Amino acid sequence: MTLRNQVYRMLERPDRREPVGRAVDIFLITLIIVNLLSVVFETVDWFYADYRLWFITIEVVSVAIFTVEYLARIWCCVEQDPDKPASSQRIGFALTPLALIDLLAIAPFYLAFLVTIDLRVLRVLRLLRIFKMTRYSSAMTMLLDVFRQEASAFVAGFFILVVLLVLAASGEYLVEHSAQPDKFGSIPEAMWWAVATLTTVGYGDVTPVTPLGKLFGALVTIIGIGMAALPAGILASGLADQLRRKREALAEQYRLALQDGKVDAEEKEALEEFRKSLGLSKALASEVLDKMRKRGPDVGQRFCPHCGSELGHGH
Amino acid sequence: MTLRNQVYRMLERPDRREPVGRAVDIFLITLIIVNLLSVVFETVDWFYADYRLWFITIEVVSVAIFTVEYLARIWCCVEQDPDKPASSQRIGFALTPLALIDLLAIAPFYLAFLVTIDLRVLRVLRLLRIFKMTRYSSAMTMLLDVFRQEASAFVAGFFILVVLLVLAASGEYLVEHSAQPDKFGSIPEAMWWAVATLTTVGYGDVTPVTPLGKLFGALVTIIGIGMAALPAGILASGLADQLRRKREALAEQYRLALQDGKVDAEEKEALEEFRKSLGLSKALASEVLDKMRKRGPDVGQRFCPHCGSELGHGH
Amino acid sequence: MTLRNQVYRMLERPDRREPVGRAVDIFLITLIIVNLLSVVFETVDWFYADYRLWFITIEVVSVAIFTVEYLARIWCCVEQDPDKPASSQRIGFALTPLALIDLLAIAPFYLAFLVTIDLRVLRVLRLLRIFKMTRYSSAMTMLLDVFRQEASAFVAGFFILVVLLVLAASGEYLVEHSAQPDKFGSIPEAMWWAVATLTTVGYGDVTPVTPLGKLFGALVTIIGIGMAALPAGILASGLADQLRRKREALAEQYRLALQDGKVDAEEKEALEEFRKSLGLSKALASEVLDKMRKRGPDVGQRFCPHCGSELGHGH
Amino acid sequence: MTLRNQVYRMLERPDRREPVGRAVDIFLITLIIVNLLSVVFETVDWFYADYRLWFITIEVVSVAIFTVEYLARIWCCVEQDPDKPASSQRIGFALTPLALIDLLAIAPFYLAFLVTIDLRVLRVLRLLRIFKMTRYSSAMTMLLDVFRQEASAFVAGFFILVVLLVLAASGEYLVEHSAQPDKFGSIPEAMWWAVATLTTVGYGDVTPVTPLGKLFGALVTIIGIGMAALPAGILASGLADQLRRKREALAEQYRLALQDGKVDAEEKEALEEFRKSLGLSKALASEVLDKMRKRGPDVGQRFCPHCGSELGHGH
Repeated sequence: MTLRNQVYRMLERPDRREPVGRAVDIFLITLIIVNLLSVVFETVDWFYADYRLWFITIEVVSVAIFTVEYLARIWCCVEQDPDKPASSQRIGFALTPLALIDLLAIAPFYLAFLVTIDLRVLRVLRLLRIFKMTRYSSAMTMLLDVFRQEASAFVAGFFILVVLLVLAASGEYLVEHSAQPDKFGSIPEAMWWAVATLTTVGYGDVTPVTPLGKLFGALVTIIGIGMAALPAGILASGLADQLRRKREALAEQYRLALQDGKVDAEEKEALEEFRKSLGLSKALASEVLDKMRKRGPDVGQRFCPHCGSELGHGH
Repeated sequence: MTLRNQVYRMLERPDRREPVGRAVDIFLITLIIVNLLSVVFETVDWFYADYRLWFITIEVVSVAIFTVEYLARIWCCVEQDPDKPASSQRIGFALTPLALIDLLAIAPFYLAFLVTIDLRVLRVLRLLRIFKMTRYSSAMTMLLDVFRQEASAFVAGFFILVVLLVLAASGEYLVEHSAQPDKFGSIPEAMWWAVATLTTVGYGDVTPVTPLGKLFGALVTIIGIGMAALPAGILASGLADQLRRKREALAEQYRLALQDGKVDAEEKEALEEFRKSLGLSKALASEVLDKMRKRGPDVGQRFCPHCGSELGHGH
Repeated sequence: MTLRNQVYRMLERPDRREPVGRAVDIFLITLIIVNLLSVVFETVDWFYADYRLWFITIEVVSVAIFTVEYLARIWCCVEQDPDKPASSQRIGFALTPLALIDLLAIAPFYLAFLVTIDLRVLRVLRLLRIFKMTRYSSAMTMLLDVFRQEASAFVAGFFILVVLLVLAASGEYLVEHSAQPDKFGSIPEAMWWAVATLTTVGYGDVTPVTPLGKLFGALVTIIGIGMAALPAGILASGLADQLRRKREALAEQYRLALQDGKVDAEEKEALEEFRKSLGLSKALASEVLDKMRKRGPDVGQRFCPHCGSELGHGH
Repeated sequence: MTLRNQVYRMLERPDRREPVGRAVDIFLITLIIVNLLSVVFETVDWFYADYRLWFITIEVVSVAIFTVEYLARIWCCVEQDPDKPASSQRIGFALTPLALIDLLAIAPFYLAFLVTIDLRVLRVLRLLRIFKMTRYSSAMTMLLDVFRQEASAFVAGFFILVVLLVLAASGEYLVEHSAQPDKFGSIPEAMWWAVATLTTVGYGDVTPVTPLGKLFGALVTIIGIGMAALPAGILASGLADQLRRKREALAEQYRLALQDGKVDAEEKEALEEFRKSLGLSKALASEVLDKMRKRGPDVGQRFCPHCGSELGHGH
């Protein structure tokens, strides 16, 4: 086993039970969190003045480690498919979203040597390291999946929201323009009111004052609340759908494992791995298992094949 | 093939794969978007002063094109059913919602020559051209369908909202009237507070100040949040329902295409067209297809192809 | 047929197709709406000054009609079950919620002769006539059904909301009391902030100003938004459930009507009545019917008995 | 039957129909509510001044009773399993969440004798007695169950919310810092705006004022509303799921009771107990029962007793 192969197994973890790889993962996650906290608290002036050296040390050490990590990933990605030509495989890997995020996480540091950027912007750009978490977070993966699957519904929801925003801002501009020329001076300015109203944020820094403006504003609010909540509804129902499908996948695995009447240690571990990879809680998994066990092995005859609950003695 | 028939095929696109018609669609969509942006940014005074000529040119050219489009649609609509008398068919077409929207989009321009309208109102009215998008947007079609199907539930939701608004405004008017006669001077005035509160917008420009007013306001808010969210909930669940039915329709098409064990190029293109017309994302379609493939060709016998549950042995 | 029987059939409409009863219903609904508008606009001072006589006339005529209606309902309710003793049946009827609402709608007028009530309170109390709409509105009936069925879940949701409100108000009182003794002077006062925050109304008239107060406030808001939305979620899912069951009931009726292969005029009218009594829209009903028709008469064999969609040719 | 056994049956109520235990429960629930009201209203200065003696009496008597209750529970918990060694069983019991809450409810009082705590903090800490309600409230139990089952989805939702909050606060800090150094002085300060905006509370005490700040704020709001509502959506759908499962469990019990064609008094009482323990409303239970009855005794053969759909002819 070559060094490159060992690094590959450590970083990309094709076998999720590898203990060294798990330790590396935990170390990198910790480092990302420390980085985020550092960027956030660096902006508190007195805090930065007191702990300047700490902040700089964290930054330099982090960039060093992230750079080594990035190069190592590029170097060892060839192991995935040893038969393909190395260079084309590396270019392909470097263009995957995850590799681009890794590059983005270290780029601002090196860029500062080449071009002059405002220091403050530079600092905050480091926050994009948060997206390195995508690799480890099943939450983000799940959300991205929902976005991809419900893409067309989202586009529909946002299109309707934009139409509503434009119409609401234009109407209110028409009726409030002369009364409040500073706040409803143009449709783009009136849009600030429309966004705050239709999303129900309602800051109150811009509100209609004329009776007609209030009447129109009230109508827009009442009609709009349902439609502004559409993207939220689509996301929530998409997520519920995905969780349901994951549960069914887990139940299917349990059913297969239970088919011979017992679950041995190896099967148990495999099921546990599968549960983790789906991102489901232990309480949920044990409930699914309990339900399965009660049914016994000859599922097909004593249970309704559709809802899965036990059928009466009359069958 | 006559010219009228060619124009008809180009504008109404009975065959969705016609390339010229697709180009015309994209051109018209672009023109609508340019128009909307023009109306919105015209209201920014310095922007209008600088680019006055541009705005006027866009308006005149757009109205010319939309007028030609409208007349062409009226002229060639006869092609749809060549056996019926032309004039009655044209009147029928001119009264369809889409044709009325097309007329509404150009009417303000010509109306300005006949009657004197406030220039500002006239400008903003051009925003109604946004509804010309209905023809091209599956999002709007879907929303209109949901509205039609859940009409009775919507009426119910809005009726309850109105009852709540009236009761909340009246109660708060009673307890706050003497403390804030300028803000709670009458029930219609108190309605502004009630709308802002029950929709959870909460501008804060009108708030109860007396202890009793706060107590009543708090109770109304707590009781009301559930009910004000009703129309939103109905819309979201209606949309989820419709998406589900569309997915089932797509799955059914895939099943039919897969029945002979393979999907040829022609079938693929037809399925792709069908997917687009339903407004579903590619990711979703490929997932549906994957699920179908895994089941194998004899799907029809062991599983219900729609709900996917195993059928009894008796089937 | 006695007069009492005729009045009974007109007011209570045991046969929903009775044309006179329908006219009486529409008249009473119109009268209620006129009453509500009258109460609302009476509070606008200049409006009341100008149309004083109109308002008084509407009130006196309405009370007269509602009184006659109430007495007539009490008088003729005996027709429902002619075998029972009349007086006990009348007392039972007078204690039903709908009869109590009818009494409540006229009581304030007569009460003003007996006791001295503030005129303003008296006027607004007339708004309770809105509840007379319950008899005619399928929306309100549906909502009341959902409330009754999901009663325990609602109690749970509100109990958790109250616990959250008390804890949030107490915590913020502790940390903000010394900084803003006028706004967070006691836990009941801090409750006003807690309600505005947890319901996401956010007036902004009371906000924490200390760093600790803001930190606690932010945590409460983030944790709380999920739980404050619980009653809304329960209501929405309860309503969706009920709509689903109604649709199934309608589909069942259609299936029965279609069993002999055709739907005659009488069946059609009966189905239309049934659809109206369920409060479902025409678009929805026609969709259900279309789906049914496509299936043909021998449903049991060609369709999955569970999801109802057509099974493949392999069956 | 020893005294310890009697106390055990009274406090822990293994048999839920025990009348003495029910009385003790109601007494303790009342005492907790009186305590909560006392803590809340003690903070109103003039109220405390007037009824000082009452508040002190309530506190001393409550602590005495809660202490006796706590000691009694520790003492008699051995009855649950008389064969195990008493001391280890008592330690185990003392470490259960419910026993720890009981300790927490009395600890502040005794702690005040040992260490010096701010009197105000001490008073408010007594509010934690609200958690003693967990033992009696099916609402809280249900919520805790949902939390445990949907744990991973919650973590996902909150993780995404935190990512959004950090990115929104950082972006707004960048663009608004120079215009409003007092309100957007650092990322942690900007977080207050981000929380108020993404949760749609929108106090309005901090709002962007620069055009770029408003543009970014509007984008964040529109994109964010969907994602901030995720935890609420997960909780609501989890709760709906659990209610559904409870209904199915109740329906199953009804089916078993109905199998011999009739429901006798004893069965009725047992079903009523079961319904109460599930926390379902009477209206719901009677609807489930009605549905069962209509189907007749041979339910088991033509319909699946769980999902209610007709079973195939092969069954």
